[in-house]
Amino acid sequence: MSTTIAPETVTVKHEIKDITLAPLGKQRIEWASREMPVLRQIRDRFAAEKPLAGIRIAACCHVTTETANLAIALKAAGADAVLIASNPLSTQDDVAASLVYDHGISVFAIKGEDNATYHRHVEMALAHRPHIIVDDGSDVTTTLVLHHADQIPEIIGTTEETTTGLVRLNAMFKDGKLTFPAIAVNDAETKHFFDNRYGTGQSTLDGIIRATNILLAGKVIVVAGYGWCGKGVALRARGMGANVVVTEINPVAAIEAAMDGFRVMPMDEAAKVGDIFITVTGNKHVIRREHFETMKDGAIVANSGHFDLEIDLVALNDLSESASFVRNFTQEYQLKSGKSVIVIGEGRLVNLAAAEGHPASVMDMSFANQALACEFLVKNKGNLPAGVVPIPKDVDQEIARLKLQAMGIKIDTLTPEQVHYLNSWTEGT
Amino acid sequence: MSTTIAPETVTVKHEIKDITLAPLGKQRIEWASREMPVLRQIRDRFAAEKPLAGIRIAACCHVTTETANLAIALKAAGADAVLIASNPLSTQDDVAASLVYDHGISVFAIKGEDNATYHRHVEMALAHRPHIIVDDGSDVTTTLVLHHADQIPEIIGTTEETTTGLVRLNAMFKDGKLTFPAIAVNDAETKHFFDNRYGTGQSTLDGIIRATNILLAGKVIVVAGYGWCGKGVALRARGMGANVVVTEINPVAAIEAAMDGFRVMPMDEAAKVGDIFITVTGNKHVIRREHFETMKDGAIVANSGHFDLEIDLVALNDLSESASFVRNFTQEYQLKSGKSVIVIGEGRLVNLAAAEGHPASVMDMSFANQALACEFLVKNKGNLPAGVVPIPKDVDQEIARLKLQAMGIKIDTLTPEQVHYLNSWTEGT
Amino acid sequence: MSTTIAPETVTVKHEIKDITLAPLGKQRIEWASREMPVLRQIRDRFAAEKPLAGIRIAACCHVTTETANLAIALKAAGADAVLIASNPLSTQDDVAASLVYDHGISVFAIKGEDNATYHRHVEMALAHRPHIIVDDGSDVTTTLVLHHADQIPEIIGTTEETTTGLVRLNAMFKDGKLTFPAIAVNDAETKHFFDNRYGTGQSTLDGIIRATNILLAGKVIVVAGYGWCGKGVALRARGMGANVVVTEINPVAAIEAAMDGFRVMPMDEAAKVGDIFITVTGNKHVIRREHFETMKDGAIVANSGHFDLEIDLVALNDLSESASFVRNFTQEYQLKSGKSVIVIGEGRLVNLAAAEGHPASVMDMSFANQALACEFLVKNKGNLPAGVVPIPKDVDQEIARLKLQAMGIKIDTLTPEQVHYLNSWTEGT
Amino acid sequence: MSTTIAPETVTVKHEIKDITLAPLGKQRIEWASREMPVLRQIRDRFAAEKPLAGIRIAACCHVTTETANLAIALKAAGADAVLIASNPLSTQDDVAASLVYDHGISVFAIKGEDNATYHRHVEMALAHRPHIIVDDGSDVTTTLVLHHADQIPEIIGTTEETTTGLVRLNAMFKDGKLTFPAIAVNDAETKHFFDNRYGTGQSTLDGIIRATNILLAGKVIVVAGYGWCGKGVALRARGMGANVVVTEINPVAAIEAAMDGFRVMPMDEAAKVGDIFITVTGNKHVIRREHFETMKDGAIVANSGHFDLEIDLVALNDLSESASFVRNFTQEYQLKSGKSVIVIGEGRLVNLAAAEGHPASVMDMSFANQALACEFLVKNKGNLPAGVVPIPKDVDQEIARLKLQAMGIKIDTLTPEQVHYLNSWTEGT
Repeated sequence: MSTTIAPETVTVKHEIKDITLAPLGKQRIEWASREMPVLRQIRDRFAAEKPLAGIRIAACCHVTTETANLAIALKAAGADAVLIASNPLSTQDDVAASLVYDHGISVFAIKGEDNATYHRHVEMALAHRPHIIVDDGSDVTTTLVLHHADQIPEIIGTTEETTTGLVRLNAMFKDGKLTFPAIAVNDAETKHFFDNRYGTGQSTLDGIIRATNILLAGKVIVVAGYGWCGKGVALRARGMGANVVVTEINPVAAIEAAMDGFRVMPMDEAAKVGDIFITVTGNKHVIRREHFETMKDGAIVANSGHFDLEIDLVALNDLSESASFVRNFTQEYQLKSGKSVIVIGEGRLVNLAAAEGHPASVMDMSFANQALACEFLVKNKGNLPAGVVPIPKDVDQEIARLKLQAMGIKIDTLTPEQVHYLNSWTEGT
Repeated sequence: MSTTIAPETVTVKHEIKDITLAPLGKQRIEWASREMPVLRQIRDRFAAEKPLAGIRIAACCHVTTETANLAIALKAAGADAVLIASNPLSTQDDVAASLVYDHGISVFAIKGEDNATYHRHVEMALAHRPHIIVDDGSDVTTTLVLHHADQIPEIIGTTEETTTGLVRLNAMFKDGKLTFPAIAVNDAETKHFFDNRYGTGQSTLDGIIRATNILLAGKVIVVAGYGWCGKGVALRARGMGANVVVTEINPVAAIEAAMDGFRVMPMDEAAKVGDIFITVTGNKHVIRREHFETMKDGAIVANSGHFDLEIDLVALNDLSESASFVRNFTQEYQLKSGKSVIVIGEGRLVNLAAAEGHPASVMDMSFANQALACEFLVKNKGNLPAGVVPIPKDVDQEIARLKLQAMGIKIDTLTPEQVHYLNSWTEGT
Repeated sequence: MSTTIAPETVTVKHEIKDITLAPLGKQRIEWASREMPVLRQIRDRFAAEKPLAGIRIAACCHVTTETANLAIALKAAGADAVLIASNPLSTQDDVAASLVYDHGISVFAIKGEDNATYHRHVEMALAHRPHIIVDDGSDVTTTLVLHHADQIPEIIGTTEETTTGLVRLNAMFKDGKLTFPAIAVNDAETKHFFDNRYGTGQSTLDGIIRATNILLAGKVIVVAGYGWCGKGVALRARGMGANVVVTEINPVAAIEAAMDGFRVMPMDEAAKVGDIFITVTGNKHVIRREHFETMKDGAIVANSGHFDLEIDLVALNDLSESASFVRNFTQEYQLKSGKSVIVIGEGRLVNLAAAEGHPASVMDMSFANQALACEFLVKNKGNLPAGVVPIPKDVDQEIARLKLQAMGIKIDTLTPEQVHYLNSWTEGT
Repeated sequence: MSTTIAPETVTVKHEIKDITLAPLGKQRIEWASREMPVLRQIRDRFAAEKPLAGIRIAACCHVTTETANLAIALKAAGADAVLIASNPLSTQDDVAASLVYDHGISVFAIKGEDNATYHRHVEMALAHRPHIIVDDGSDVTTTLVLHHADQIPEIIGTTEETTTGLVRLNAMFKDGKLTFPAIAVNDAETKHFFDNRYGTGQSTLDGIIRATNILLAGKVIVVAGYGWCGKGVALRARGMGANVVVTEINPVAAIEAAMDGFRVMPMDEAAKVGDIFITVTGNKHVIRREHFETMKDGAIVANSGHFDLEIDLVALNDLSESASFVRNFTQEYQLKSGKSVIVIGEGRLVNLAAAEGHPASVMDMSFANQALACEFLVKNKGNLPAGVVPIPKDVDQEIARLKLQAMGIKIDTLTPEQVHYLNSWTEGT
């Protein structure tokens, strides 16, 4: 069916893999939309109210079917948005094609693009001279601050999707370099409670299974990091019959993991017992040379943290004689020691590299937050402080209420007597 | 063995059930101490440093073996402490006896004391003219503010153990009546992540099983409230094979419950399908007349929230012809409609009424926070603001580290490279 | 209330602790009856049909509230039954009293009776000259065969409740000594799928928690044996947040345990990592000298297998300087090595020694099988082969149907088309 | 890389999609082999001993990477085997190509072949004049009996992989038509405990996720059938955060499901509450017209039972105006009522249609049983009875032992004292 598309008829700027993939992308975007009722309602209101009319947005996201629905909502709101990939391996080329062809939205993203291309696309996003940056990991914002400070006065604000991006923004603020508001979308309850936990939990295992088709039951799975993402991965891995080991640096999270029934140990020890390793720490070189050296023959390593430096692939390369693909997205490193280590998705986000990222149902809430954060920035232009700004509590609650409604779930409301009780303090035993 | 105790030889003031129970209490206090290594270390340091020398403390807690270990630690620190029960049904009479007999600590608490006695004990606690109130539900603090405002100048501060108590203290502060610091012990991560979740989870089911000896597998258990306590109860109930239904008023918590695999519905609907109901909301009349009317014949209701008003027993009485005990702590209400409803522990905290409260292992951290909060109040006397004050972060982390060590668990520490990475923001994709 | 009982008014033979406990026992027996709707229906039919009129039965069971309901049903059927304990520690003295006082059933059982008394009671059961033996572990049947062969001609048959008893009966049959039918009640699906798994699972943990009040979350629990009982214990232990290790001798069960997510290792290794050990193997000396020697200080051991020889207490005694109770049912052995080992319930069935045995809801099905097995023996007197005889399939299915009904659960029935399909073989792809 | 293959150089008979896919298939077959250590050891022994020399085998299996390893082992044993697909949608075309090209094994199987082609391939399998039929669902055996009775004298026996196939064979035997031995591979413990439960559990969800990318957390998943496959699917669905409903016709299995914490209800009721339906019953029309009519809009149905008649697609078609693909393997039926129903994989085995079938690790044991069953048939030629014959117990245990070894798991062995104990019956309480 793709043969009906004539590339020359497409007028918006784009740099994508293949425009003829648009029909497949369109179908998949529509499928995802079914599971995104909250974003759909926001889109409908945006289309009527045009709250982002005249606003230029540079959005840096994983180019998935869910992101497409966000981009469509932003456009419906009147925004002039361009979209780039937030990760070289996470682009779905059919989605990119459909956004360009069916929706007239500029996209610069190709699955498997090299780092130079990736950075060129970041530059193209900034060349759009955005008023708002929708960021995912803060690469665009960082580039703006480091290399395009002249554009800062045009910036109304940014929104940040990830834990990792917020760590960077807070460090940037401490250095006095974050001089505009950055909405902490990640910190919305309707975002990180769900997307980070249930989304990452399911999609990380999905990526590993698609890449390897191995049985998880009976395997020792080492989860590095017991934050929201790690909790999700550990929970689902146990749900699939794995024996889960957790590594941590935070003693409170370590006790939680232990009382949740997992073994907790340092990576030095975990390296020796694991069959599969999954990093979700937001930190660097969590699995490194000393760990590769003691792993079992055929151990599998994957990353589901934002950046691809959680696994030290440079060290692994150095230890290895050769590396070759044994399945799609699955590379075997032959170590000089005679053992092998299997790396999935080149150490990039495994759920996006080898599967399709978070399911639409959780991204519905995450991207509802993104859409409303953009509206909030515009409505409060000039009135927000510099630095990381939380998403308003009532936005968060409203998204939750819409989501519940869409899930067909009813809950209780406080009786007047209960409201009074919660506000009094004189009634006790 | 108890016959060797001559009551007339006891010199500290007390109002307890039976001093001859002291040997049994002593044995059980020592047993609990084994699972409280963090508090033990603090007690040892307190004994050497005497940081609470000359400080009068009124402690209002569930009088359990774990509380006894806290009281012993406070005494070791040089404090002059009296202990009263925070709930009429939660006192362990043997523990009270041992504290008086073996440790010379004044206790005013009798299991099953009536409300008048309970309130008289609160008055006796205040008559001790405390500098610090260790509170659990804020009954002593509320009484102080309402009826003994003259003593407020002597107060250094209070510490509060429960979510419920903090709700009251914040309401009190909004009303301008909380004019001294109140340390939010409940909000320490090493407290509410563990005690509220794993402690309440296990001990609530323990109370129900001891009271009824019924099989939980295959039962529909309705958990009202999906806060930390509710999460713990729901998790453990599922762990025992129950089919769990959650009721909530907070839409975010409701979605969490749904994505954790539980059914979520209003209490109106849950009332009809539940076999066992457990309230853990911190609110009033969560189960009330309209719910009793539609419950199945023989439905069981229990409360694990702080106060005994989550279940509206007045309404139940009104609907009933008679009530009688069918097992210890287990009353059957014969409704005029012909059905019956079973109430456990008179609607008071079921884990304390029908079992022994939270296991020592979690109270270890909770009470380590209490002990260190008292020391913190004394050290910072005059320098803390009025209102609810968080426990210092480093206290929380230190408790976690000591606990991990005691559990024999080692974790990772950041490499210098990782520390640097977490503080930089320029390194990205 | 017990003061109204005049012991001299009781006419049936008995050897129990205290007849004045009858009212408490009565109350508890009635409470259990609520959760035993299947047995109740059978009792009602038995009362009308008297299928066991004139039959003398010697029942050897744990004397619990559930067993009481079985005894009452057998009496209702016209049987002349006497009841003895199947374990020195499992008798509930109030239940024994009520059976004697309220129901006129002879009971010879005292909690904590010594082995000599236990064996004397076995003799008294046989002195009743039973036509049917309802056995639990086959002690009565074994004594009959070894020492009272003259009574064998009077025997219609026996029924056996446990896996352990069936192992003995099969060995007895191989030796040519089992010359009458023994109904394998344990092997009914409605028995071992439920009682062994869900009953043992819950009640074993209940016993350990009542005895110790320790938090299971975060503990390493070693489950020796992954049969139906072991599966139940491991599942529930994980459900309470423990990290479970399984030991096995059967490779198939070992792989199952591994694929269920548990660690599997030999007891030699498990001994070093466990915090709590639970034996459910049906075998002897599963935990022995070499294991005690390498356990952590303060390790807890309990048995939930039928006999008290799964833990080698003789070896433990030999390794120890002293032993003393630290809580009810909880003994600490001080080893000469300086470490201690905690033993619960003297190594006897921990769910019966320290808690109340299996909940009524599962015993409902187990004892429905017992009651119907007795009826089946009488109806088929003379027509059954010697040796272990399965419970008829339709009895099993009928019990399941009654139970489902009582649980308020409806299921599907085959359509005529489906019945036809299942009986044909020519319809394929 | 595939361009190096010249189709005309291939000499073995075949009917496959594309011979140039061989290199990809080879790579994937080798990858699967890593997780099949037991079959690998058997293959090595077979290669040395040639136990199947001169034996013609017709194997009808899902043509997956795991089956390829079985075919290779049979060839190594000296057999002359041809392979056909056991399901029109389950063939992996690259695997078929590699078997032909790299291993010289005849394959007649094309993914998506129509029913006519499927039946033609069954005929081609029989035209090979097999001594042994390795069957999966008994289509080949049924065709033999119905249409090629003349070949029966040449048959040594068959082996059957599935529950469904055994139901057919037993019906065939009752009709007096099964006149040769059929080894019940499915009934080996090392087969159905693992493949049916853990294999089906993981791969069924994998198929649904690959086809739809929807989040399972929070969805109501209805599992029809609580046999080994259903248990696996229900367990894993809960492990992914779904709320699971079970339907059954067997009351014992229904109580099990309830006590495992699942809701149990008839399909009539389940149809109304389910978001996703999975059939694993081995029966016909489990989901039919009356159920489609009451499903929620957008409900998803999938089958993981052997045949594609568990979901009545004829009725669904009849209720619908149109049907169209909304994603790969995912069809939306637009009902005349205005609602839609989503069908995955055309109602065929969803794990094979939309994913890659059972992971290698479980098929390792299943196919080890198949390989050893073939050897057993040859060794016992003429000495086995007609009808369904169990796999020898020691074969089963040996496979388990090899598997455990390969998993690096050690277990206990009985001490002499324990062996003696298990064989005696005189030692009791």
